[in-house]
Amino acid sequence: MAKAPVLTPQSEDFPRWYQDLINKAELADNGPVRGTMVIRPYGYGLWERMQQEMDARIKDAGAQNAYFPLFIPQSYLTREAEHVEGFAPELAVVTHGGGKELEEPIVVRPTSETIINDYFSKWVQSYRDLPLLINQWANVVRWEMRPRVFLRTTEFLWQEGHTAHATYEDARDYAAHIHKNVYADFMTNVLGIDVVLGRKTPRERFAGAINTLTLEAMMGDGKALQMGTSHELGTNFSKAFNTTYLSKEGKQELAWQTSWGSSTRMVGGLIMSHGDDNGLRVPPRLAAVQVVVMAIKGDEAVAKVREIGDRLKAAGLRVQVDDRTDTPFGRRAVDWELKGVPVRIEVGPRDLEAGTAMLARRIPGGKEPVRIEALAELLPKVLEEGQAQLLKESRDRRESRTTDVATIEEAAEAAVAGGWARIPWSTLGQDGEDQLAEQAVTVRCLVTEDGSVPEADDAPGTVAIVARAY
Amino acid sequence: MAKAPVLTPQSEDFPRWYQDLINKAELADNGPVRGTMVIRPYGYGLWERMQQEMDARIKDAGAQNAYFPLFIPQSYLTREAEHVEGFAPELAVVTHGGGKELEEPIVVRPTSETIINDYFSKWVQSYRDLPLLINQWANVVRWEMRPRVFLRTTEFLWQEGHTAHATYEDARDYAAHIHKNVYADFMTNVLGIDVVLGRKTPRERFAGAINTLTLEAMMGDGKALQMGTSHELGTNFSKAFNTTYLSKEGKQELAWQTSWGSSTRMVGGLIMSHGDDNGLRVPPRLAAVQVVVMAIKGDEAVAKVREIGDRLKAAGLRVQVDDRTDTPFGRRAVDWELKGVPVRIEVGPRDLEAGTAMLARRIPGGKEPVRIEALAELLPKVLEEGQAQLLKESRDRRESRTTDVATIEEAAEAAVAGGWARIPWSTLGQDGEDQLAEQAVTVRCLVTEDGSVPEADDAPGTVAIVARAY
Repeated sequence: MAKAPVLTPQSEDFPRWYQDLINKAELADNGPVRGTMVIRPYGYGLWERMQQEMDARIKDAGAQNAYFPLFIPQSYLTREAEHVEGFAPELAVVTHGGGKELEEPIVVRPTSETIINDYFSKWVQSYRDLPLLINQWANVVRWEMRPRVFLRTTEFLWQEGHTAHATYEDARDYAAHIHKNVYADFMTNVLGIDVVLGRKTPRERFAGAINTLTLEAMMGDGKALQMGTSHELGTNFSKAFNTTYLSKEGKQELAWQTSWGSSTRMVGGLIMSHGDDNGLRVPPRLAAVQVVVMAIKGDEAVAKVREIGDRLKAAGLRVQVDDRTDTPFGRRAVDWELKGVPVRIEVGPRDLEAGTAMLARRIPGGKEPVRIEALAELLPKVLEEGQAQLLKESRDRRESRTTDVATIEEAAEAAVAGGWARIPWSTLGQDGEDQLAEQAVTVRCLVTEDGSVPEADDAPGTVAIVARAY
Repeated sequence: MAKAPVLTPQSEDFPRWYQDLINKAELADNGPVRGTMVIRPYGYGLWERMQQEMDARIKDAGAQNAYFPLFIPQSYLTREAEHVEGFAPELAVVTHGGGKELEEPIVVRPTSETIINDYFSKWVQSYRDLPLLINQWANVVRWEMRPRVFLRTTEFLWQEGHTAHATYEDARDYAAHIHKNVYADFMTNVLGIDVVLGRKTPRERFAGAINTLTLEAMMGDGKALQMGTSHELGTNFSKAFNTTYLSKEGKQELAWQTSWGSSTRMVGGLIMSHGDDNGLRVPPRLAAVQVVVMAIKGDEAVAKVREIGDRLKAAGLRVQVDDRTDTPFGRRAVDWELKGVPVRIEVGPRDLEAGTAMLARRIPGGKEPVRIEALAELLPKVLEEGQAQLLKESRDRRESRTTDVATIEEAAEAAVAGGWARIPWSTLGQDGEDQLAEQAVTVRCLVTEDGSVPEADDAPGTVAIVARAY
């Protein structure tokens, strides 16, 4: 007799599978104000580990954390023309404070380029103050018409980096450094998600940027998700806010700037990259709980799992002991599967007799008996195999579901069918891009033929990657 | 010739000294919206270290982090009568979102009891779901009429814990556990600040609580600062939000709740506890930079400080190397004093000849030559001495500036003169408390004669601690 599925199968209804998983693995709930979300402890634990890993890489890139206000005077937004045009439709506006109507309305930050430039213009005086490399972890608000938990929410959590440099080249190189050494490194090596590094077309650029670098990942249903972006802002904001410095040669010069962000959207990307019909699969390097040691039943098993738990913790693994033998084992096992803990060690009376435990791998699956003494040495290898397996699956999916095409029609067809298409940018062009948009298909990014990031939109041999996207 | 002071001396104008220090040590700036603040990297570094230390203690207390929305429907606030009365005058209200006027106004959270109870009422079904122990790190907004950086700001950063329990006793004990084992432990042993643990009077209680526990510290000018609070909420919010559970006996019961918070206000407390006329003094256990190794001048000194820096880092110390010999040494030394780095190691040409370095202690002050080889062994001891010294100074100040008094007039006099008064609560009473309020003097907390926390307002032998406060 087949078990009733815990989740709607992916093949049946991918969006419903996603929502089922978020509910049943207790990752998040919808908030009372439309488009907001409550991130539950297990979901927040994923974000906390993402923050730790990202924060270390951001600090290695020389940036320092700071905090700028949530509230921005409405007038600030209007100073950079493209920026206000891009964000005006998404703003939440505070009109009353302390029981009174405010003289000037305040916007809740949708991003912080404007308010940060107001301070950069004070802090940057001389070339000696450059580069100025700042990051903040914060919440931002963008009014969302079609919300979806983690992917598009009215309020989300993110990090936003903001930097000022003496030259165009230095700013360009720093945006690229963050793109590659912070974002791509984290996503590939910790999240185990294959990402394509590319350049956005002018249509898809950040409002106020001269160039946007992006990381695009293919989800389980073949759609694309933008996992993070790094922008060259040129001198657009430094002009608007008068962020200038005295050069070595004694001249007043405009600062060149970058900004770069990644958000709780990555949690959605993690789910849709690695989840399967049994639930989430958390990459071992990210997992707050890498190994759960479960007592099946009986006091002896309880004592043994506590002992094993202590031993594995001492070996440097992130371990949780599940000794709740008053809850049926099957129900607990299904729950750990749903939550995607990479490895379960199960101990029952029969295992105790044999001196073994059952090792259940979430990635790729399967169970085998293992001598208890061998666990501490074996598990790090099992975890690294799981980590590598997830990245391989992610890469294989992207490769097998990407098609090289020669016409706009073929590109649209491939995208609508649930895959990515590669088409020469010279064949597509901005008119072709507009044409694709009518079928909700977008250019995710431009890459060169060898897969690197083009230095300009019109660089020879540039290829457009075309897909439907979240 | 006396040096011009870097800061306004404390004895001349304490509030101006505070503001000078914040500016010159680059801790924070005022934000463009009145009452908001920009926390600069060095100030944010203090908060980050506070978060790390607090977060570990909160997790040890069994609570898990989660995240609830910034935006709360206005109607939620009105469900608990005292709560809305307490917070209504301080709310920021969003009336427009996505370019339209909203049907129901939204408030920006001043605290999260209401929205969290909305979810607790869904998540808590059975006694098996209790206790439910949640914490969040977040920004909150309370419209502030008399703002002062770090101490009273319209937006501030904090942690807020929210828990639900099966019984009154369990909730009471948990609030007390957080008060003592999270807050007092952190403040005493990491911040090096002497805190008095007490109970708030009904007048000073949190809006919606049946009991508020507080930690009060004496600042450099003899005023009090509330460093954190832990509330017993009784069943006030569970009644308002119908947070009930099925007991073991099969009856629907109201959950008993707590909430507890501490904020960026602690950064203000740190400054006003430990700062002196030369700047901040950061307790070594908190400091992100415990030791700065400075090259005075010359390439050999630069090479040597880098070598020393590496060696001290390898020994587990948090070290920064200052090899900026193109900036005058004196200016850099003054800046590290201002920033309060506990220890400076200074190396110049003469030191190199002698094989020594100059050890400059920020706490308690003074310089001495030390053999370079001895540093790694010596410094941990020097840092622990500095840590102990700060706590001792804080305790000595509180003890020497606290007076036992017998009348309300004497209590007011002691407080106005810049100290604390201890007066029997039976002598003062709620009428006396109202009378003191006319002179801006408040009861900071109630304690028992042996210094422990009274179990009730009217416990026999209760003593009121009376002061002016930030």
